[in-house]
Amino acid sequence: MHKLNIGIVGATGYTGVELLRLLARHPNANVVAVTSRGEAGVHIADYFPNLRGVYDLVFQNPENAQLEQCDVVFFATPHGVAMRDAPALLAAGVKVIDLSADFRIKDIPTWEKWYGLPFTAADALAEAVYGLCELNREQIRNARLVANAGCYPTCVSLPLIPLLKNQALLPDMPIIADCKSGVSGAGRKAAVNTLFCEASDNFKAYGVAGHRHLPEIRQTINELQTGIADKLIFVPHLTPMIRGMLATTYVHLRDGVNPHDLLTEFYADSPFVDIMPIGSSPETRSVRGANICRIAVQRAPEFDGNVWILLSVQDNLVKGAAGQAVQNMNVMFELAETTGLDDVAVLP
Amino acid sequence: MHKLNIGIVGATGYTGVELLRLLARHPNANVVAVTSRGEAGVHIADYFPNLRGVYDLVFQNPENAQLEQCDVVFFATPHGVAMRDAPALLAAGVKVIDLSADFRIKDIPTWEKWYGLPFTAADALAEAVYGLCELNREQIRNARLVANAGCYPTCVSLPLIPLLKNQALLPDMPIIADCKSGVSGAGRKAAVNTLFCEASDNFKAYGVAGHRHLPEIRQTINELQTGIADKLIFVPHLTPMIRGMLATTYVHLRDGVNPHDLLTEFYADSPFVDIMPIGSSPETRSVRGANICRIAVQRAPEFDGNVWILLSVQDNLVKGAAGQAVQNMNVMFELAETTGLDDVAVLP
Amino acid sequence: MHKLNIGIVGATGYTGVELLRLLARHPNANVVAVTSRGEAGVHIADYFPNLRGVYDLVFQNPENAQLEQCDVVFFATPHGVAMRDAPALLAAGVKVIDLSADFRIKDIPTWEKWYGLPFTAADALAEAVYGLCELNREQIRNARLVANAGCYPTCVSLPLIPLLKNQALLPDMPIIADCKSGVSGAGRKAAVNTLFCEASDNFKAYGVAGHRHLPEIRQTINELQTGIADKLIFVPHLTPMIRGMLATTYVHLRDGVNPHDLLTEFYADSPFVDIMPIGSSPETRSVRGANICRIAVQRAPEFDGNVWILLSVQDNLVKGAAGQAVQNMNVMFELAETTGLDDVAVLP
Amino acid sequence: MHKLNIGIVGATGYTGVELLRLLARHPNANVVAVTSRGEAGVHIADYFPNLRGVYDLVFQNPENAQLEQCDVVFFATPHGVAMRDAPALLAAGVKVIDLSADFRIKDIPTWEKWYGLPFTAADALAEAVYGLCELNREQIRNARLVANAGCYPTCVSLPLIPLLKNQALLPDMPIIADCKSGVSGAGRKAAVNTLFCEASDNFKAYGVAGHRHLPEIRQTINELQTGIADKLIFVPHLTPMIRGMLATTYVHLRDGVNPHDLLTEFYADSPFVDIMPIGSSPETRSVRGANICRIAVQRAPEFDGNVWILLSVQDNLVKGAAGQAVQNMNVMFELAETTGLDDVAVLP
Repeated sequence: MHKLNIGIVGATGYTGVELLRLLARHPNANVVAVTSRGEAGVHIADYFPNLRGVYDLVFQNPENAQLEQCDVVFFATPHGVAMRDAPALLAAGVKVIDLSADFRIKDIPTWEKWYGLPFTAADALAEAVYGLCELNREQIRNARLVANAGCYPTCVSLPLIPLLKNQALLPDMPIIADCKSGVSGAGRKAAVNTLFCEASDNFKAYGVAGHRHLPEIRQTINELQTGIADKLIFVPHLTPMIRGMLATTYVHLRDGVNPHDLLTEFYADSPFVDIMPIGSSPETRSVRGANICRIAVQRAPEFDGNVWILLSVQDNLVKGAAGQAVQNMNVMFELAETTGLDDVAVLP
Repeated sequence: MHKLNIGIVGATGYTGVELLRLLARHPNANVVAVTSRGEAGVHIADYFPNLRGVYDLVFQNPENAQLEQCDVVFFATPHGVAMRDAPALLAAGVKVIDLSADFRIKDIPTWEKWYGLPFTAADALAEAVYGLCELNREQIRNARLVANAGCYPTCVSLPLIPLLKNQALLPDMPIIADCKSGVSGAGRKAAVNTLFCEASDNFKAYGVAGHRHLPEIRQTINELQTGIADKLIFVPHLTPMIRGMLATTYVHLRDGVNPHDLLTEFYADSPFVDIMPIGSSPETRSVRGANICRIAVQRAPEFDGNVWILLSVQDNLVKGAAGQAVQNMNVMFELAETTGLDDVAVLP
Repeated sequence: MHKLNIGIVGATGYTGVELLRLLARHPNANVVAVTSRGEAGVHIADYFPNLRGVYDLVFQNPENAQLEQCDVVFFATPHGVAMRDAPALLAAGVKVIDLSADFRIKDIPTWEKWYGLPFTAADALAEAVYGLCELNREQIRNARLVANAGCYPTCVSLPLIPLLKNQALLPDMPIIADCKSGVSGAGRKAAVNTLFCEASDNFKAYGVAGHRHLPEIRQTINELQTGIADKLIFVPHLTPMIRGMLATTYVHLRDGVNPHDLLTEFYADSPFVDIMPIGSSPETRSVRGANICRIAVQRAPEFDGNVWILLSVQDNLVKGAAGQAVQNMNVMFELAETTGLDDVAVLP
Repeated sequence: MHKLNIGIVGATGYTGVELLRLLARHPNANVVAVTSRGEAGVHIADYFPNLRGVYDLVFQNPENAQLEQCDVVFFATPHGVAMRDAPALLAAGVKVIDLSADFRIKDIPTWEKWYGLPFTAADALAEAVYGLCELNREQIRNARLVANAGCYPTCVSLPLIPLLKNQALLPDMPIIADCKSGVSGAGRKAAVNTLFCEASDNFKAYGVAGHRHLPEIRQTINELQTGIADKLIFVPHLTPMIRGMLATTYVHLRDGVNPHDLLTEFYADSPFVDIMPIGSSPETRSVRGANICRIAVQRAPEFDGNVWILLSVQDNLVKGAAGQAVQNMNVMFELAETTGLDDVAVLP
């Protein structure tokens, strides 16, 4: 069976270890290089104890990793790195899947405003495809550079896309996405505010004044139904659990529109989106460790107007990051979209 | 110092043990009877290990507890019990504080619809005062029967009250209260869905199709600004923490209205409501174990319209239940409102 | 590829859903029947939300499930059920793997003392093989009835077995196994003491006066080194996590014995036991969801005597229950021992 | 009522905020200065959100804090700071309570070996009293410098002290203290290994090769029963909870010794040690937030020999740190030992 030679840049974070977990059992995956400046020389099994006996790889400095000989390189890095290093890999004929935000926003001034860096890879950006298979499957099939969709944007956009494509939202009414994420979304860096004793048994909103995923979601909305993107209000919350994300999205729909029908039809051929029966309430644990987004819709009770509550859950590290990246890889290399992504969610 | 003789009916749940914790250090409190049919004869210290050495009381059957000799009786019971037993106590000159929902809803058909029982205490209901001191302090001062406000209604209503009193909400726009509660809100009954292995590391919405606290919040809204109560959408979520509740409430305000000014002015003399600086983000742990509701407001970023996000947190067992009940008792008996309620929140 | 027709009796608990998760991806597994009297008629995906889209099975009453047509039946039931129902299946030529304790104890009076039931399946017991592959691989290969080892006995016995086989323990000194388990070990029944609000943010010992796994561990010890089984002291503790078990076992060894050498040699060909470098400290998360027991040993520091601390971790639902059962099935049916058990532990 | 002017050096950690929580309601406490170089100028309510409205204090640089005008200064600092700064305060007539380890070990070479610093305060050490009231109440009454006992040493020593004072332990047998601590014991510093995603849903041993509390416990043992301190084996474990510590200590006692009698008699007049009935199993939540150590003893079941299991629980931040410090302060200043320490444990 054809094996893809794979490199992972910046594999010391949670998206990195999750990529390694998923690729370990992918029949077409052959991880040949994992890079980290800080941990160069360290065996990944000494760094991630779940990988003992699974891989025999040592973190390398990127310049020694011969990434240009890979078929595909994943960037699991802070923003700015892929922007700097991806173009050379593309020039060497390597396909790139960027899990960071560098290539997600098509409007450069918007990106620079929200990420606080000058953007330096306009040519790469021009060919980058937004990595949400359910929206862009065909473009991803032919892409050399995929900008893996963000965790919140994936969870919020999937229930909205079929409604937007049908111009089903009332233009003058707000779209309110009240989102809740597990702590792993904050990454693996030493910080006080994500210590166990700070984040456990606690709940709070954050980034209310403006979160970088707001323009990313608005870009997707604007592509599908014009004049409504600015009506999005997005408030993320930090939840005391490791993995999992739930979006509660409140939408005002045109009279007669039933979102369950639109979602069911639109996702009929998408293996990783589960449209649940009307009245269901998805739980984050039902997708823990699995590359699935489960969606349920309920009409606002005792409310005069066609207002619906869209409930969507995913594992922020899988469908919201590493699993989605593998899904994109499968599509880019003409493998079955589900290859290596058949894990059943871990419950309890 | 004058001591109040206190009885607690149904003291085997979480609101019961929290009442006992708070009253143990209340200088005017003398708990003389705790009742439970199921646990009659059991020493409360054998039942609640945190009370070892604090009380020397045994659970009694209600009929043996001589509750009619108390100054005040708290009901920490399922709905239906206070409705049945409170009238006789009132007739005996005992003041009653009901932590259940029996006397919260003034419209009997509405109560019967949501609680599924025939309502049998219309006379008591007629004199019952809704037990939210910040709204009804004067009526509570003279009340014989107080219906302690519910946990969600307290957390959602406190940030809304000053806005409603000023008719500040746009009448045609929704009020969306997206609420998150710790698991203790579900009580202490044996049930699968609140087992550690079901509720831990998991997040979900529940009661989306209709929660009993919806009519309670709408009743409060309707008293203050007419024609808008039906615009409330209320979605509760279950959060993997023991205590704590956060409400994220999205409101559309008349042009020029600044909710921070209205909240600061209205709560100037309320010791248990903390209006934080604009741009703050309250955390549930900042009130863990304390009788405080902390509120912050932020204007929706990059949104065309005067939409505000109201963030309010409380400990659902304290300001949302037992602490509020003690606060009501203090007002009913002309004690300083803060008596026995000066615990500092436990952090971490 | 040859498929085994599989039945699961009592599939509504945590070991049941874990069996279903693991078998879903086992290339030789074809689950044809899941039984539950209480849930008969309910689709398993409505009962276990992680199984939506994975299985199309409905719980059946056992008598309708035609279990006698299966190749193998797993019992994931309370004790007493397999003792009653397994003999008829054996007579029908079905192989049985019992995850309950019915066939673990060879001495019937001992079993009856600890489990409080009359034992009624002496013939089946006579042929039952204790289902710990690392100890009894050959007997399991030819067994018709396997008594899957208990969770604590697996975690405690694996580090001891190589020492006992070498008569390495001092006969007059205690063997102290201080064990810590996640809450899922208590099962999925509605009970107050395993509610989230009782078990979370809490730690306690339980069963100190005598736990049913004590005689099971002692039986294994006694088979390997005589005269020392009674020296075992076993204290289990309840830990606020869903999955995972750690045993800290303190042993006094003959002079000159190095347990690391004995363990490394003994488990050289056991794919699911990981002997870590001396001085390591295994974490339960390093095996979450995976069929692995990781073991590290450290000599007691600044102590006069050859006392060693044996640290062993496993996922109590996988290597401690369902994964071990699948491992036993693989050996019983001459499949590669690792078939379908290659999941990488989920971290974070 | 006489008020003590109090300073807290290094108040940005968990012991610091816990001291502030407890002293806020202490009738004789007047906190006049809190110091932190890193946070100088920051209001403590902006740093610790639970203290909003409780204190109006700003962190100061120590040199500006006029600590020499305090009646008592608490050091809640890393080791090395109190050793450097306490002598000058003592010379100025200020009493000092050190929550760090600087003055706990009387043998200077031992301290230097375990803490890796040259010890520079021999004179202060000579007068320092080990701050465990249950052991040294009289010496503390007259002390100017108290070395607050460590968390593990408090939890392990309290059940052992009455046995050691009675020479009840067999000299040739091990004393095994298997200890479990909540994560707050690791402090509030930014670090990867105590992140929520690393420490949650995980359990592990640490410091097996040698923990700094080993010599501290051995010093206490050696003072009470000679020739047995070296028999102590101490293994700490990290538990996924914020607060709480449980020690499971295995001891071999002389024939006929019943530890329950010895403990009950010895602690008859100690208000913060709760000896539970034989056969009890203390839970950490029963002391959450309270200055109590609860102890139960059980004889090892089915074991030939007088081996007992001592179970002790405390809140590591209260009886294991800040509460014990306030208890020491009360004794040093001839206040009732229980002053300001009457909080009831928070359950659930």
